Amino acid sequence: MSGSAQLSDGDAAILRMFEAGSPRGLARAISRAEGGEGAALMGRVFERAGRAMTVGVTGPPGVGKSTLSSALVTMARRRGQSVGVVSVDPSSPFSRGAILGDRIRLSDHFTDPEVFIRSMASRGHLGGLAGATGDAVAFMDAFGKDVIVVETVGVGQSEIEIAELTDTTLVVLQPGSGDAVQLLKAGILEVADIFVVNKADHPMALQLRREIRNMLEMLTFTGWRPELIVTEARAGTGVEALWAGIERHAEFLRTSGELEFRRRAAFAHRVRALVLGELEPRIESQIAHLVREDAAALGDPYVAAATLLARLEQGVPREAAPPSPARKPAAVVKGL
Amino acid sequence: MSGSAQLSDGDAAILRMFEAGSPRGLARAISRAEGGEGAALMGRVFERAGRAMTVGVTGPPGVGKSTLSSALVTMARRRGQSVGVVSVDPSSPFSRGAILGDRIRLSDHFTDPEVFIRSMASRGHLGGLAGATGDAVAFMDAFGKDVIVVETVGVGQSEIEIAELTDTTLVVLQPGSGDAVQLLKAGILEVADIFVVNKADHPMALQLRREIRNMLEMLTFTGWRPELIVTEARAGTGVEALWAGIERHAEFLRTSGELEFRRRAAFAHRVRALVLGELEPRIESQIAHLVREDAAALGDPYVAAATLLARLEQGVPREAAPPSPARKPAAVVKGL
Repeated sequence: MSGSAQLSDGDAAILRMFEAGSPRGLARAISRAEGGEGAALMGRVFERAGRAMTVGVTGPPGVGKSTLSSALVTMARRRGQSVGVVSVDPSSPFSRGAILGDRIRLSDHFTDPEVFIRSMASRGHLGGLAGATGDAVAFMDAFGKDVIVVETVGVGQSEIEIAELTDTTLVVLQPGSGDAVQLLKAGILEVADIFVVNKADHPMALQLRREIRNMLEMLTFTGWRPELIVTEARAGTGVEALWAGIERHAEFLRTSGELEFRRRAAFAHRVRALVLGELEPRIESQIAHLVREDAAALGDPYVAAATLLARLEQGVPREAAPPSPARKPAAVVKGL
Repeated sequence: MSGSAQLSDGDAAILRMFEAGSPRGLARAISRAEGGEGAALMGRVFERAGRAMTVGVTGPPGVGKSTLSSALVTMARRRGQSVGVVSVDPSSPFSRGAILGDRIRLSDHFTDPEVFIRSMASRGHLGGLAGATGDAVAFMDAFGKDVIVVETVGVGQSEIEIAELTDTTLVVLQPGSGDAVQLLKAGILEVADIFVVNKADHPMALQLRREIRNMLEMLTFTGWRPELIVTEARAGTGVEALWAGIERHAEFLRTSGELEFRRRAAFAHRVRALVLGELEPRIESQIAHLVREDAAALGDPYVAAATLLARLEQGVPREAAPPSPARKPAAVVKGL
């Protein structure tokens, strides 16, 4: 087991800081995970994780997720709880600017030593969002944070992924952004534990609430019934009610046995991300070799895929083969 | 090889229609691919593909991609070329409504028998965007379409994926949508062969052009230097210039040998998507078994992933193991 393996001197120093409760130790552990080098440290602290209440906050750009996250941090701090925040940038080239702007709203808490805030980009990490973000949550949890908020913009798969990492998922929607039913049909129902209609003062807020209510009424739930909570996070309105909703959901998870189920699913999700992150370069390397073969023998993509699968069924190679001679980069920054 | 394998009666009928030049044959072949059943047909027609000029059109929601695609279709038709259009919905729950609205702009061409338009959702397909979309492009190409336009909204990975499937990629940007340099830093440089600033009459159009030009000036290109073309697609302004730019790029690809390189990369991309689409459920099944083991023996996610990898190095199982007893669905639609 990696837990009993020898740590490098660097990791041993990080572990000492981490165990002494130093935020720098936590920050460095997360950085090790971001660099794909977090396994040894995780082996030493993982068994301390599992105590924190974890809340995911997702939704389209501009709905006020960061303001809401910031308000949740304030609520937790009033209760004397320590907080970790992971702010994930899913690296859509078209949303980056907006997200950076958003983050500023968390700055109210920058001087509070009991609040640890970490921004992460998901692109390029081993295991994507689930990899380094999952590690960050586990490290914060093991460090002793009572509440962990994971905030990500809902583009592509990220709103599904965040739900796999956290106990309670808030889906934040904005009045006037289109047909809610249309949006919600597309896989959101499965991930939302609580719908938050933020910007309660918006003229379309009432209509969005009605649409979500109508949609929820068409469904029968066997376990938790998603709640709908209206907030005006900038003014602090509705945040108490939202916190109460999150606590109700946490209580439901504990008493129904669903918590154990979700945590196992989250564990499986992280294992999957790590395994695929390891396998993909090895398969990539196999494909690169395959497409250099005689084109006629290669056939169409289905035939080539079947050939490769048959090879993998004999065993996945232990390492990626050395890369083929690289093509010159198409663009280089002058002077670098 | 699958090309010589016996076709099912259904596929044989589709192939006869396809070979007779019936759009219904093409439509059904693509539907077979969408259902994950396109391999046999692809084996029969793949060698006829490779002749079409393929153009990807990507960019954020609302920039006028569909209007632009529609204008490109008109240009090709004036030249007597037949056209296929694949309109891909990347299935972000937050953008679906907008995309459906967009598509209506292609309806000008619905009655032209030489224009074949197909909308596809990428979610749930074997191999994701690359899988069924790649098949649709290959089928249209083998069917004899001269020009194929693949349109997708740029969220998450889709703008990268579209570039892997097409010869020429247009990145459409909108004036006034934020800091272009910020957007462009995030991986877009690598995919854009031509930047299109649409909505030329927008007050911020000049500023966006300047930002893109400045960015391009900071770079040295070893091959193709991305062009910047300004259009007002709704009025048809600039579309001739855009078409000329696309033809210049196609000519560059042919004369530089880059076309062969891109096509091999596209082939590899499709093989990768198919292989991963096959592997993932098998790995999923292994993980499900793993997490049912004794939690203490399982360790942390890294230890569990290492255990699983060691098993896969001995050989990937040929089939996914039968699923474990399913959990009751959390929500069911009433009356179904």
